[in-house]
Amino acid sequence: MAEKVTLLDFYASMFGMRARVALAEKGIEYEFREEDLHNKSQFLLEMNPVHKKIPVLIHNGKPVCESLIIVEYIDEVWNQKSPLLPSDPYERAQARFWADYIDKKVYDAGKRIFLTKGEEQEAAKKELIEILKQLESQLGDKPFFGGDAFGFVDVALITFSCWFHTYETSGEFSIEEHCPKLIWWVKRCMQKQSVSKSLADPKKVYDFALVLKKKLGVE
Amino acid sequence: MAEKVTLLDFYASMFGMRARVALAEKGIEYEFREEDLHNKSQFLLEMNPVHKKIPVLIHNGKPVCESLIIVEYIDEVWNQKSPLLPSDPYERAQARFWADYIDKKVYDAGKRIFLTKGEEQEAAKKELIEILKQLESQLGDKPFFGGDAFGFVDVALITFSCWFHTYETSGEFSIEEHCPKLIWWVKRCMQKQSVSKSLADPKKVYDFALVLKKKLGVE
Repeated sequence: MAEKVTLLDFYASMFGMRARVALAEKGIEYEFREEDLHNKSQFLLEMNPVHKKIPVLIHNGKPVCESLIIVEYIDEVWNQKSPLLPSDPYERAQARFWADYIDKKVYDAGKRIFLTKGEEQEAAKKELIEILKQLESQLGDKPFFGGDAFGFVDVALITFSCWFHTYETSGEFSIEEHCPKLIWWVKRCMQKQSVSKSLADPKKVYDFALVLKKKLGVE
Repeated sequence: MAEKVTLLDFYASMFGMRARVALAEKGIEYEFREEDLHNKSQFLLEMNPVHKKIPVLIHNGKPVCESLIIVEYIDEVWNQKSPLLPSDPYERAQARFWADYIDKKVYDAGKRIFLTKGEEQEAAKKELIEILKQLESQLGDKPFFGGDAFGFVDVALITFSCWFHTYETSGEFSIEEHCPKLIWWVKRCMQKQSVSKSLADPKKVYDFALVLKKKLGVE
């Protein structure tokens, strides 16, 4: 059967980018449909009636929602090339743990950096640095979180890197100063076409963040 | 190799109970170690240094944290008996989606019912009922969320049922009145020893909730 793969996504979404990176790693061609998040399409509402959010991967007419679930689905369906999750159950559990940690921690701290000011912003900066240091220490001296190969945790985290410029500019700080090894890891990931071609331009992400701040009434 | 399995847990935790149910489904013997959440053991802090939370499953000395990750680990390691996740990738993604939905929605709405009053409590009640109705509609006419067999989503949700009494008593409402089919499903699950022997006594859960309210300074 000819595969039909569609991704409902939004350019600057770190969650949508995870699906893009995973599909690129597997070499899957797909239709990219940009959604206007302030005027969501009827199709998106039908495909994800529960959360009404992007990304949604539609594979032969059937929708899969929630970015990490999408990445795991892609890994299971197209399992011949570039495995993302390790085969050992314990290693798989560890990979899921760190991807879940990223989901629970990075987005929220990052968002508070560009949507708040003063003490609240300082606290968010401190928090994000602690989170990234924790991740850096988990990376250790390995080239990738997946070990020698780019894997599930790499996909989960790398998409935030194109938001680093927004966090740094809003918070007037340097992530590299605190987490130099993590920035080397970002550069290593960016040497992969599956990553560099899937990630948004950090300057365009920043422009989007400015529009978002205006819309939310934050100066 | 002789298997050594230990569970760091807390009696009334709906998250810890998930691990208990999954282990019971697989027929795995394990050591249950009750944690005092107000005076956590050094062992817990060593086994889960990132979140410092129960449950932690320790399998031959190696810790696995986060309840859904634990359940999936148990399903992958002891895969000869009572499969919890379906084998088809799409069905697996759907099961993960609903388990994730439960994680993101049920706990928070439930907690607000017994920790707030007045308008806030009314809103939380309304929210919980909507969430449970959504789940009930997902269950449809199937005996279990897993279809004919008890599965991953059943494990994820059933452990909240021993908190229903606390939600209902605090909020003065009846879940059965709004979601009769879901309560039938609870009863069906409770006919399984793996469930009935793993779940906490609803009255003891309520006693714990009262202690918790007092500790948090909520009347």
